[in-house]
Amino acid sequence: MSDQTGKEKGEFALLRRLKGELGGDWAGLVGPRVLVDDMAPLPVGDGELLWTTDMLMDGVDFESNKHDWRAIGRKAMAVNVSDCAAMAVRPVGALVAVALENRLSLEDAVELHRGLREEGEAFGCPLLGGDTNSWSHPTVISVTVIGRAEPGVQPVRRDGARAGDRVFVTGPLGGSILGRHLRPTPRVDLAVTLARELHPSAMMDISDGLVVDLYRIVEASGCGARLVEAEVARAIHADAERLAGQDGRSAVDHALHDGEDFELIVAVPPAQAEPAAREFGLLPVGMIDEGSVVAWEGVDGVVKTLEKQGWEHFQ
Amino acid sequence: MSDQTGKEKGEFALLRRLKGELGGDWAGLVGPRVLVDDMAPLPVGDGELLWTTDMLMDGVDFESNKHDWRAIGRKAMAVNVSDCAAMAVRPVGALVAVALENRLSLEDAVELHRGLREEGEAFGCPLLGGDTNSWSHPTVISVTVIGRAEPGVQPVRRDGARAGDRVFVTGPLGGSILGRHLRPTPRVDLAVTLARELHPSAMMDISDGLVVDLYRIVEASGCGARLVEAEVARAIHADAERLAGQDGRSAVDHALHDGEDFELIVAVPPAQAEPAAREFGLLPVGMIDEGSVVAWEGVDGVVKTLEKQGWEHFQ
Repeated sequence: MSDQTGKEKGEFALLRRLKGELGGDWAGLVGPRVLVDDMAPLPVGDGELLWTTDMLMDGVDFESNKHDWRAIGRKAMAVNVSDCAAMAVRPVGALVAVALENRLSLEDAVELHRGLREEGEAFGCPLLGGDTNSWSHPTVISVTVIGRAEPGVQPVRRDGARAGDRVFVTGPLGGSILGRHLRPTPRVDLAVTLARELHPSAMMDISDGLVVDLYRIVEASGCGARLVEAEVARAIHADAERLAGQDGRSAVDHALHDGEDFELIVAVPPAQAEPAAREFGLLPVGMIDEGSVVAWEGVDGVVKTLEKQGWEHFQ
Repeated sequence: MSDQTGKEKGEFALLRRLKGELGGDWAGLVGPRVLVDDMAPLPVGDGELLWTTDMLMDGVDFESNKHDWRAIGRKAMAVNVSDCAAMAVRPVGALVAVALENRLSLEDAVELHRGLREEGEAFGCPLLGGDTNSWSHPTVISVTVIGRAEPGVQPVRRDGARAGDRVFVTGPLGGSILGRHLRPTPRVDLAVTLARELHPSAMMDISDGLVVDLYRIVEASGCGARLVEAEVARAIHADAERLAGQDGRSAVDHALHDGEDFELIVAVPPAQAEPAAREFGLLPVGMIDEGSVVAWEGVDGVVKTLEKQGWEHFQ
């Protein structure tokens, strides 16, 4: 894909283009953080406040013919809370805008908002207001969350990874489509603890897949990374194994490329690698290196470049 | 409409129900302001920060087969900036989440974001980030804006109207569908000036129609209002006259019920009525009274209750 073909349409391409087209004008306030991190700093306060927005669409991010509206509401809030976890920031409040499909009952709409509220409150993030609309197309839910850094805890960005850092994940990956994707567990407490104790050089949550999200870290940081098969093999979720048994893809393929795990990718300086694993139970999956791609080191020692694939919108 | 029928489905009904179902739990932080005003206070800071979110859907709030994407972007930002004007708050930054219909080109998407950016920057409200998605259904745009009250200027809520207040609008109304609806002029500067100089008892922008939005003020304030035909007759936009010539409805009907004017309804104490008109050019349309409805006083002296009608989602 290339801009020159006029057909570059993926979300990454759009974000690059938007940054190119608009960046000069946006840069004054927040500089390169625009559209780079999971949250943007608020243009007020002393930098401790950040905010994020995530939109979920019926048929894309959830299936209203399979999932109940309360669970859908919980997920819509959880993915935003997970963006807070990605930066080690505590969510403090949310707004929600919805376009409800006309066929929904009032009870469906209430259940949706109950789910949003419950999930937010579990993380200290009350639902404070919103915009309620309806139309004849599938339901769209857009949540915006404001987060606040804890005193003494710097929000962790994704552009600080450096060659030599070790790369960890906060839990086993893959196969979330079997059910976990609808009930993510945002890692807010762990993220804040990690930020305070380990000072990670970069962090983000895995929403689109380990490889594609690790690409986001290395592209923002101007470095490369290597995933190590022998390590990734110990970070595969049982759901990935189950799904592999159903669809013929390998479990490791699911661990590398499945989206919506909402565990965190954590890059830590070498000196912190040992406590990261021992004290916090993080699972090592590889390292940051001098390259510019995400590579794969097989158990046979062969190293190859991983394609940037995973869930990408607008393509 | 009644909850007992099980068929009460309008947006007002949903908001009432949500407040009833969830209000007890929401109330701790922001009390009755939740879902009552155009903006909600942020749960951080000293009360000077507020935020709002508005979602626009293709085929409902704009027509992508008629309007260009830049104009659509401008409108999506303007309606949010107008929510700031409604409370006399200055917008300071925006996030945007989009679900782009797959058929859009990259250039369409860039134009949409250019329009969002341009309109925001015209009001000191830079676009700070967002969430970009695509799908096979019509485009949805969700904008969230944070606003800040100017020093010494209290945000104006909609629940402060009191019997005896005079009711003004900031400009002539009706017929916005002929084109003005796509290029609203948020009254931020005027709103801040009015808040500082006149201390309005209640204010909001007219997004769904004079009558339905005035109902929102009187319901929030626990009072009634009377619109006076002789006054409203001098607050009718030329577009309302033109549209009346086309569709057979009267111009005053358009002025009362058309949505998307984005002028402000301003209730001011009687002592401020004279400067409101003379110094700030506000157009008187009626008064707040002891009742519980919005009434209409004809030039013949007959008073009747106006139905709460206008653009209402989820019905």
